[in-house]
Amino acid sequence: MPETHFPFTVEAADAASAARLGRLSTPHGEIRTPVFMPVGTLATVKGILPEQLEELGAQIILSNTYHLYLRPGSELIEEAGGLHRFMNWDHPILTDSGGFQLFSLADTLKIDDEGVSFASILDGSKHRWTPEDNMRVQNQLGADIIMQLDQCTPYPCERAVVQTAVERSAAWARRCRQAQRNPRQALFAIVQGGVFGDLRLESIERLLEVDAESPFEGFGIGGYSVGEPHELMFETLGSVANALPHGRPRYLMGVGNPSTLLAAIAVGVDMFDCVLPTRTARMGTAFTSEGKLNLRNARFARDLTPLDPACTCPTCTGYTRAYLRHLVLSKEILSSVLLSIHNLHFLLDLMARARQAIREGTYAAFLQAWQSSPAAQDF
Amino acid sequence: MPETHFPFTVEAADAASAARLGRLSTPHGEIRTPVFMPVGTLATVKGILPEQLEELGAQIILSNTYHLYLRPGSELIEEAGGLHRFMNWDHPILTDSGGFQLFSLADTLKIDDEGVSFASILDGSKHRWTPEDNMRVQNQLGADIIMQLDQCTPYPCERAVVQTAVERSAAWARRCRQAQRNPRQALFAIVQGGVFGDLRLESIERLLEVDAESPFEGFGIGGYSVGEPHELMFETLGSVANALPHGRPRYLMGVGNPSTLLAAIAVGVDMFDCVLPTRTARMGTAFTSEGKLNLRNARFARDLTPLDPACTCPTCTGYTRAYLRHLVLSKEILSSVLLSIHNLHFLLDLMARARQAIREGTYAAFLQAWQSSPAAQDF
Repeated sequence: MPETHFPFTVEAADAASAARLGRLSTPHGEIRTPVFMPVGTLATVKGILPEQLEELGAQIILSNTYHLYLRPGSELIEEAGGLHRFMNWDHPILTDSGGFQLFSLADTLKIDDEGVSFASILDGSKHRWTPEDNMRVQNQLGADIIMQLDQCTPYPCERAVVQTAVERSAAWARRCRQAQRNPRQALFAIVQGGVFGDLRLESIERLLEVDAESPFEGFGIGGYSVGEPHELMFETLGSVANALPHGRPRYLMGVGNPSTLLAAIAVGVDMFDCVLPTRTARMGTAFTSEGKLNLRNARFARDLTPLDPACTCPTCTGYTRAYLRHLVLSKEILSSVLLSIHNLHFLLDLMARARQAIREGTYAAFLQAWQSSPAAQDF
Repeated sequence: MPETHFPFTVEAADAASAARLGRLSTPHGEIRTPVFMPVGTLATVKGILPEQLEELGAQIILSNTYHLYLRPGSELIEEAGGLHRFMNWDHPILTDSGGFQLFSLADTLKIDDEGVSFASILDGSKHRWTPEDNMRVQNQLGADIIMQLDQCTPYPCERAVVQTAVERSAAWARRCRQAQRNPRQALFAIVQGGVFGDLRLESIERLLEVDAESPFEGFGIGGYSVGEPHELMFETLGSVANALPHGRPRYLMGVGNPSTLLAAIAVGVDMFDCVLPTRTARMGTAFTSEGKLNLRNARFARDLTPLDPACTCPTCTGYTRAYLRHLVLSKEILSSVLLSIHNLHFLLDLMARARQAIREGTYAAFLQAWQSSPAAQDF
């Protein structure tokens, strides 16, 4: 593999599974994988200050190109010195390309081989992105890791449509790779192919053709978690991960369910992102070692115990379920803050324990213990 | 004056004004006056964690008995070990009696010499408080400083109505004083009298009759800032403060405008509270050395300077006006958090500088400098 500015080292591998422990260097610091990336859609992880993310052990966050392009605009963020300075986060950032957001706006989306035309969700204004445009926008944002523009397909979806998306995404991967020349930004290609195992492998084959000429620093695995049954994803995910280059990070896009994360790690995935922990928090629900707790439930009204007695986060050491329930029912800002801190801690801590287990060669046992825990029954 | 568990020492007095520097001991620590108390209506200063309040130098916060009584209920808070433990704030707390909240719910309020009957704003349920009931509720909440139940009058208001409120409030002060026997809670009486200077002095005279038998640990000055012109308050505020015992703290209730605070300090007031800094923050407006900045204003769209170049708070050292405006327009939680931090810092820092000026005997000059500053023209 040619030299790269983003060296990725696989430091340990589990004996009984495909789980691996890695280290990815970026201009804003090293990332230990497997890693969960909290989502800061609009250049803010909702309700959480950057210093709180640091204290939680967040190594990298994700931000959304589609949303930032529309508001406040990527030119402004470039003027401000890039996303890191704009949002006061001096650690790694990944931006998606917006492919997934466009896909979920199918009403107003027009897609052809040259690019995508779409209408703003904010004001209906018309926009067009070629792969080159998308790279320019992500260059302006200045994240450490950027994603190719891709075509994501829904579930269910006709095979012919998925086939076209696979070919188009590979062609765009090439154009993105040619357009993206900023040495301070890693470019990840994205595997598509829906639930069709052969199309997934075809997608990887096409991307590796591009990669052979000019390598990608990593690979996203897109187009899962779009409504298909959980089991269906795992029918193909393992062979997808296995077909990707060993020496490059593998990022399963948009997945945040704890059980899914741990199972995906076992088949060789390194990176994850999802709005689930923070969105769930804003709805008043906590991830705990006993499963999900919906604090609106009347049984917590006089419960003076911590959210999760097994948890060491600031929310669990400082507050009771009764207090948190009071904040949720009163629609207090602090309910979102405290529950987001807890839910992020839950996932980040789970990843830290997963890394520890891989290091010790006991990941398969760790996964099994999780799967038979009360929490797993609820996720 | 008889022995008290809440010693208040006047440590310095300004030469050219009635401003004074004081120190009030409470079971949860000492309070240096003049002091501004951030408001945590529902056992949370909206959007701000207790550790952030500490970092901002908040010495004491205020919480609202009326709101907490209705939700989550004072029994629960007592069960939780009191307000301090419930909300994880191990520093002084003051609770108001609810007199002001009841007064602003005039539609459903019935008041007689024995007490008040009122309907819940949450569910319309009927409640009745005698002064003794109110003390019991505040005992359950367990704040360091509690306020007597009083009758607040609006502006404008007929003299006869104000006269009745003065008499009733004094009678209730006596009953509260008799009922409140928790040595870990200071009880403040409340001066009423509206804009009538003679009724204000009569109110004080009545309260001092009670005080002579069983002293109050301090005095609230209520019934101002209820819609009367600012100047009208200052026609009587000085003589009110002057007529109160020198050795007890004087608390002007519900006032948070920076200019008003500084002018009130000059006539001998020691304590203040107001929702203004946090409420204003949630509406997207910052208090700055140049006056108020409404971040929705388009002129801040590409403004990459700090909110207030003269400010050292975490918001001003970490973020630009353009970023904060982006958060406000995007209705992001962090806009409330960051602007509340800044606005609280603005007032708490102003109080720290006022204390410094009094200590140095230069308060009159400090006040004059403020009054001729650009900020003062806007407040």
